[in-house]
Amino acid sequence: MAGAEDVRVIGSLASPFVMRPRIALNLKGVSYEFLEEKQGSKSELLLKSNPVLKKIPVLLHGEIAISESMVIVEYINSVWHSDASIVSSDPYHHAMDRFWAIFIDDKWLPAMMESVKASTAEAKEACVDKLVEATQLLEGAFEKFSKDKPFFGGDNIGYLDITFGSFLSWIKAAEKIADIKIFDESKMPLLVGWAERFCADEAVKPVLPEPDFLVEYWKTNFQANT
Amino acid sequence: MAGAEDVRVIGSLASPFVMRPRIALNLKGVSYEFLEEKQGSKSELLLKSNPVLKKIPVLLHGEIAISESMVIVEYINSVWHSDASIVSSDPYHHAMDRFWAIFIDDKWLPAMMESVKASTAEAKEACVDKLVEATQLLEGAFEKFSKDKPFFGGDNIGYLDITFGSFLSWIKAAEKIADIKIFDESKMPLLVGWAERFCADEAVKPVLPEPDFLVEYWKTNFQANT
Repeated sequence: MAGAEDVRVIGSLASPFVMRPRIALNLKGVSYEFLEEKQGSKSELLLKSNPVLKKIPVLLHGEIAISESMVIVEYINSVWHSDASIVSSDPYHHAMDRFWAIFIDDKWLPAMMESVKASTAEAKEACVDKLVEATQLLEGAFEKFSKDKPFFGGDNIGYLDITFGSFLSWIKAAEKIADIKIFDESKMPLLVGWAERFCADEAVKPVLPEPDFLVEYWKTNFQANT
Repeated sequence: MAGAEDVRVIGSLASPFVMRPRIALNLKGVSYEFLEEKQGSKSELLLKSNPVLKKIPVLLHGEIAISESMVIVEYINSVWHSDASIVSSDPYHHAMDRFWAIFIDDKWLPAMMESVKASTAEAKEACVDKLVEATQLLEGAFEKFSKDKPFFGGDNIGYLDITFGSFLSWIKAAEKIADIKIFDESKMPLLVGWAERFCADEAVKPVLPEPDFLVEYWKTNFQANT
């Protein structure tokens, strides 16, 4: 187990991308120092650690700095071994994890953002339909890959659990902010059960913020400017 | 060595993303059948093999279908072992490869597209400045990671060589289409040398198209519509 002095995460409490390496470190039992980056400003350390993209999260491991949330998660999995591997050693399984992770960040997330930002009732309905459709594809993926086990990763939390699970607090917050229903038990019963199990995990619980905190965060940082 | 009957790539000759798995298969000495997808249409096989994103490339390996170019490259590296590994086994090196691959696709490529599409001389100049700046960051990355060896991957073609090298024909084509200079020996001498070595490799040569073919391809498929 690495000491907190060796491992630091630069990020914000609200960013789902920052939650990913934090959950991975907890799963591996690695203590770390959390260096909070305030919304709207960039610290000297962040600019020095990620001079190319200048964005969170950054993992500092001794003298090494790693960026991009799922790249960090893979790094954590490779460096700190434990019984529960986050990354599948099966090439097909890992390829599917990577594929669906790209789908979540490039297709599902924009659909969620559009649903929250839609300015008319009509636009919102169309966006939510698209979002529910994207979420149902993930329901199908869960059915295929979990094989009746509790997580996308099987018996343990894995790559795709972390990728999608990092949005669970934001999903609840978005449902409140935009008065919409994303996780509908009649349309995605497996994901509803999975979400409960994921949020209750000891490695996840301290990382996922309360939805009301994110609702306030949204109102303060985004809604005021629109 | 797998037989061609087991391994098929669905793609187009002009797509840099399709060139990536083809180069990886050549590096591993794996024969494959190339199933050409015509610009503007989607075959039944493509829609069946990648029903979620409906895009090329797709690798078909027996009953398995894998999508997303660099996900396919990692799959190829894991399934077909050889002396020359495309993916570094060092967690830090692999994380850096993944990071720069994201930079190439998400930052560098849009900068190149903007440079080619810029409609005024002033806009073009600003876009090319941004593109040259992004390319110089890759020059810096090459200096850091190649450590005086011929490739990003060291002695052999690796992950980042394939990611960036797949654009080399398009860079030459873009220079002709837009009458711009991207690879400037005075600004990025290391990349100019690297590009020559990469294009001359036996695994790469049959895959990278002639720049004039891409110039014609661009004129036929894109310029006519703008």
